[in-house]
Amino acid sequence: MSETSSSSSLKMTVRVALDNRPGVFAQVATALAEEGANLGAVDMVTADAEQIVRDITFEVRTESEGSRAVKRLQSVPHVRILPAPDRVFQVHQGGKIGIKSKLALNSRSVLSLVYTPGVGRVSDAIAKDKSKAYLYTTKSNTVAVVTDGSAVLGLGNLGPEAALPVMEGKAMLFKEMAGIDAWPICLNTQDPDEIVRTVQAIAPGFGGINLEDISAPRCFDIERRLMASLDIPVMHDDQHGTAVVILAGLMNALKVTKKPIEKIRIVVNGLGAAGLTCCRMLITAGARQIIGCGRQGIIMAESPERLLACKDQLLSCVNRDKPKGTLQDALRGADVFIGLSSANLLVPTDLDLMAPDRVVFAMANPDPEIKPELAMDRCRIFATGRSDYPNQINNALAFPGIFRGALDAQARKINDAMKMAAARAIAGIIPDDTLTEDYIIPSVFDKQIVPQVAQAVAHAARETGVTRR
Amino acid sequence: MSETSSSSSLKMTVRVALDNRPGVFAQVATALAEEGANLGAVDMVTADAEQIVRDITFEVRTESEGSRAVKRLQSVPHVRILPAPDRVFQVHQGGKIGIKSKLALNSRSVLSLVYTPGVGRVSDAIAKDKSKAYLYTTKSNTVAVVTDGSAVLGLGNLGPEAALPVMEGKAMLFKEMAGIDAWPICLNTQDPDEIVRTVQAIAPGFGGINLEDISAPRCFDIERRLMASLDIPVMHDDQHGTAVVILAGLMNALKVTKKPIEKIRIVVNGLGAAGLTCCRMLITAGARQIIGCGRQGIIMAESPERLLACKDQLLSCVNRDKPKGTLQDALRGADVFIGLSSANLLVPTDLDLMAPDRVVFAMANPDPEIKPELAMDRCRIFATGRSDYPNQINNALAFPGIFRGALDAQARKINDAMKMAAARAIAGIIPDDTLTEDYIIPSVFDKQIVPQVAQAVAHAARETGVTRR
Repeated sequence: MSETSSSSSLKMTVRVALDNRPGVFAQVATALAEEGANLGAVDMVTADAEQIVRDITFEVRTESEGSRAVKRLQSVPHVRILPAPDRVFQVHQGGKIGIKSKLALNSRSVLSLVYTPGVGRVSDAIAKDKSKAYLYTTKSNTVAVVTDGSAVLGLGNLGPEAALPVMEGKAMLFKEMAGIDAWPICLNTQDPDEIVRTVQAIAPGFGGINLEDISAPRCFDIERRLMASLDIPVMHDDQHGTAVVILAGLMNALKVTKKPIEKIRIVVNGLGAAGLTCCRMLITAGARQIIGCGRQGIIMAESPERLLACKDQLLSCVNRDKPKGTLQDALRGADVFIGLSSANLLVPTDLDLMAPDRVVFAMANPDPEIKPELAMDRCRIFATGRSDYPNQINNALAFPGIFRGALDAQARKINDAMKMAAARAIAGIIPDDTLTEDYIIPSVFDKQIVPQVAQAVAHAARETGVTRR
Repeated sequence: MSETSSSSSLKMTVRVALDNRPGVFAQVATALAEEGANLGAVDMVTADAEQIVRDITFEVRTESEGSRAVKRLQSVPHVRILPAPDRVFQVHQGGKIGIKSKLALNSRSVLSLVYTPGVGRVSDAIAKDKSKAYLYTTKSNTVAVVTDGSAVLGLGNLGPEAALPVMEGKAMLFKEMAGIDAWPICLNTQDPDEIVRTVQAIAPGFGGINLEDISAPRCFDIERRLMASLDIPVMHDDQHGTAVVILAGLMNALKVTKKPIEKIRIVVNGLGAAGLTCCRMLITAGARQIIGCGRQGIIMAESPERLLACKDQLLSCVNRDKPKGTLQDALRGADVFIGLSSANLLVPTDLDLMAPDRVVFAMANPDPEIKPELAMDRCRIFATGRSDYPNQINNALAFPGIFRGALDAQARKINDAMKMAAARAIAGIIPDDTLTEDYIIPSVFDKQIVPQVAQAVAHAARETGVTRR
């Protein structure tokens, strides 16, 4: 009977029948309050002289708190809990995607065209010229969404089966937003060598590889080795999708605050998969002063435990002046804060340390580095990953168009130029005279996004010579 | 402009415009005859006072003979060749299958149900209880169609890209015949260890594995190791699909000839993947006298080069009396011949060596072991893999229903009992009083087959205790 969890608190909806007499609803509200549940929307379902049926939504912190609240409601006199389907589990029954055949198989003549003996001629043609697979098979329009289940959403290492509904959701987004046929591949191994070998082995049937929810730092090496060995586009979306959308948002934010990217100081907090890739993209876009922070504050080149290969490489650009200190030291005078870390790391006065016209992207998922209510008044521009506040940074703005463009161009890879083009295209959806502090990034439902991103990405692929045709 | 090759000869259709004057078509016919092309159907497309457009179909032996014939037609006066689409390649453009999303992704509330944050609750539920993947993901209805491209149809080792259109065709059949969501996985390796490891790695997202077009003897070991290590059904269709349908056909044939399977002598010619598995199924079904033959005649237990592990194991049942000699020696007095070898190995008088009421299944693909025209009069019952003669033994009669039943029962494997049940169900589609020499096997388009086979297979799975629930 619970609905969706939109943050670390859990929203539950319960359908209850209340005897139609005074004071019953007040008893319900009191009971919930006593269990620590926060009453939200109350919708009327039906009402007659005898009883009123309502859908009551409330917030709790955990599933078990929710169960206790429901149990308590059952004990309130004149109140009965009705069975109501859980919509989340309901829409997941039997899975969210399927295969469709492009032709009805209703006669022997169709069978002989699409299967033996006709198909043999197509196989022969492809055997003679492999590139014909792009013309006569689904390869031209397919992406494998590959995960090892090691970093499922913000939930951690849940394994391949638990990752499957997320990958199916991603496949839905690919299809519905960009017309791409994506299929989930959930791997029964978390060994980087085996992941690389498996993806190499299944690559011939796919036009692209979207790596998903693979934990850092393994994801860097896996992506690098696959990009080097395969001649189809490979992209780890957790890194690049997020980085592209952050850069798009930042481009527009800097137009509003009229600060050139070359002159600003940016603090990036959280150098995981997304944070590191974000730093790389910012540098590609012209940023010169980036201060990278981790759990112990500013990450120093001298700090040996930080000298992972991937980070080391980055330290030549990030933290060049070898600053030291806490996150607060980093924030002093900074123009931009980008958080890809965890909830509630900042207090409001931390923001006051920053320069005027400050831009804060608090991307921690599901709860940002500082509550929007506390931050919005203290920043010129504030953005999060959440859909219930303005300026949602959502990677669904990037990956459908990036892969659409890469497939359209038959690109052999997704390179920096293509990702930069995607960021510029996303930023460019909003005309300059329409940009405001609360509207720096378009909605994921804006129909212009995928075609414009795809066109820009395909163009960049051709310009940089990575296309197949 | 060529159409389909229904045998070793190639059928081509060319669209030609002929000036509307006497004698032009005769010139066309003569030109084709002189190039060795065999004139077939001649269809009128349009006609007016100036010209007549016809689709001319002719048979040639090779693609290059076809090209020569077309070139020759171009030189005939008053004849112009028109561009006409090649239907086989036309239906393959862009591939034959795609993904469909079960929900339209048209609002933020749907997005939050099927993707973050809602999907996180489903992932959590599956992480706590893996079996819930069967309830809330596509796993319950999906099959990976896995090939290494080493034995594509009868065409040989064409590699994974060239195998893709065949695997897509198979996926179409799965969907259209049995509602199963099958996805092609074409492997970039032909090493058995790597194939096994790759399939093990991708297994969590699939409800079953259909191995396809993997060459013998590698296929036996690969299938055995996957069956032993995975807890989802694994079946190499080239072996078992064919064997099930042959057994179904033989059951009905023996009803017509009134011979019990325990009493008959069966010659199986060609002990490749399908032949060996066919022998095993015949033994399971009660056959006691099977003579296995290969290129050098009867395969003897003593013959060291034949002592491959897979065959050795079989030799305890097959050729028990240690017969020796040629294929003809084997045929002397035999009741049934099952050919899974190659074209035109038999002459009509070979059949005369067999017992009365002989049954001949000449399954070599695309041309049978003996031309149907030469054999049909000399046998009581004659069957081939071809659709243009009665009694077509087609593995599409078996695999859709077998996997449907295995998925419906959430079976952990496809065992002998399930395959036997499938054979009996296919045979049982034709009522005893309807069986004739020319009707021992139902049509692949018979709508009863998949439900009846599925029901029988699911029942057998439950009876033998291999179901998950």
